[in-house]
Amino acid sequence: MSTSDAASGDATSATPATAPASAPARSPFDLPDVSGLVVGVLGGTGPQGRGLAYRLAKAGQRVLIGSRSAERAAGVAADLGHGVEGADNASVAARSDVVIVAVPWEGHGELLASLRAELAGKIVVDCVNPLGFDKQGAYALKPEEGSAAQQAAALLPDSRVTAAFHHLSAVLLEDREVEEIDIDVLVLGEERAATDVVQALADRIPGMRGVFAGRLRNAHQVESLVANLISVNRRYKAHAGLRITDV
Amino acid sequence: MSTSDAASGDATSATPATAPASAPARSPFDLPDVSGLVVGVLGGTGPQGRGLAYRLAKAGQRVLIGSRSAERAAGVAADLGHGVEGADNASVAARSDVVIVAVPWEGHGELLASLRAELAGKIVVDCVNPLGFDKQGAYALKPEEGSAAQQAAALLPDSRVTAAFHHLSAVLLEDREVEEIDIDVLVLGEERAATDVVQALADRIPGMRGVFAGRLRNAHQVESLVANLISVNRRYKAHAGLRITDV
Repeated sequence: MSTSDAASGDATSATPATAPASAPARSPFDLPDVSGLVVGVLGGTGPQGRGLAYRLAKAGQRVLIGSRSAERAAGVAADLGHGVEGADNASVAARSDVVIVAVPWEGHGELLASLRAELAGKIVVDCVNPLGFDKQGAYALKPEEGSAAQQAAALLPDSRVTAAFHHLSAVLLEDREVEEIDIDVLVLGEERAATDVVQALADRIPGMRGVFAGRLRNAHQVESLVANLISVNRRYKAHAGLRITDV
Repeated sequence: MSTSDAASGDATSATPATAPASAPARSPFDLPDVSGLVVGVLGGTGPQGRGLAYRLAKAGQRVLIGSRSAERAAGVAADLGHGVEGADNASVAARSDVVIVAVPWEGHGELLASLRAELAGKIVVDCVNPLGFDKQGAYALKPEEGSAAQQAAALLPDSRVTAAFHHLSAVLLEDREVEEIDIDVLVLGEERAATDVVQALADRIPGMRGVFAGRLRNAHQVESLVANLISVNRRYKAHAGLRITDV
């Protein structure tokens, strides 16, 4: 961090959150019990969707995976086990309390626009990273709305849109020999009750921890940091993830 | 990461770097000895510049700090001890092998343009985070060139421009009670010999580790991730930093 932040003090130092004087600040580690929630995964037959569905179901969560093809979703669900069910994306959206969006960026806007009614009132968790690839590797795409998460929020005004689960390796998520996923999941959103639920969901997966990391207007850099992790992976032959220190 | 990356395989999985068939891939942990290099810090009298200068000098590096005012630089240098010297920015640029840019974003372009001759042939390490602040906290600014680091590269075509040291807490850097800085420094750049030197410099500071994290075209998200760390700090009353897992 440079001294460009000097105007607001040390930008990475602790700044007390403004809270009503009458209400003591709640501990950021005091998260709700989410064990009874049904989690849907749109794009649940892709590597990332499958991996997240597997980890959440293995941790005891009720999980539905969605796909354009209900048959394909049912087939993948049977492979995943742990009670995972498959259906078409619209049915999964309608039947879930929390809906993870793990579809390709290319079809992201179109799918969400088509599910506005089914997703109304739901917590939506966008984990899409808009990236381009060329001979030099990956680079960030800049969605017109600022980020995939902001596009979701614009298309789903009746939903509680959050962003999370961007930096996971699908290879590790799907590897049944891997018991713990060593990563902090950055969770972004406008509404604390919603981001708390998403953090609590991340916390259910062994090794994983949900960390609140700001509003949706700061989602672009979290989404596009995957381009950097891809560079790390190439250089170090790794499946790189992130940890936040001092939290 | 979403399945949007499926086209190139699992984007966060290990992909072999292309290397000439005749040369075995060098270990990414095989870094040069940088103990003899002189490190200059432009903006060395601000909190970030002072903190970095202190840590590098304490680790045994020869360090010069620059400021618009040579007198002010000399005064701060005397306070820092460990052999740190102060001078005006141009003298520091001319006398150093590696030059860290820790000035406010507002004056960044103007200063670098004025030092093009002094910085020719040098390794330049940009650690500036272009951020805006309002009542909701910090948010990313988008420099016309894409990032502060890309602006530096455009203004300094004769220099070896890298980007690093974005996520450090000036409070921790300057706190003499703190012995180790628990952080991975993401190092970006186009030329491996230059990023290797910067990684090796980061490695000299106890607790700190330099990790290669891509080309300058992917610097914007690294610079602006500071906005997210500020949100983390507010929520958790922390001085948050990053660690890269599986490396």
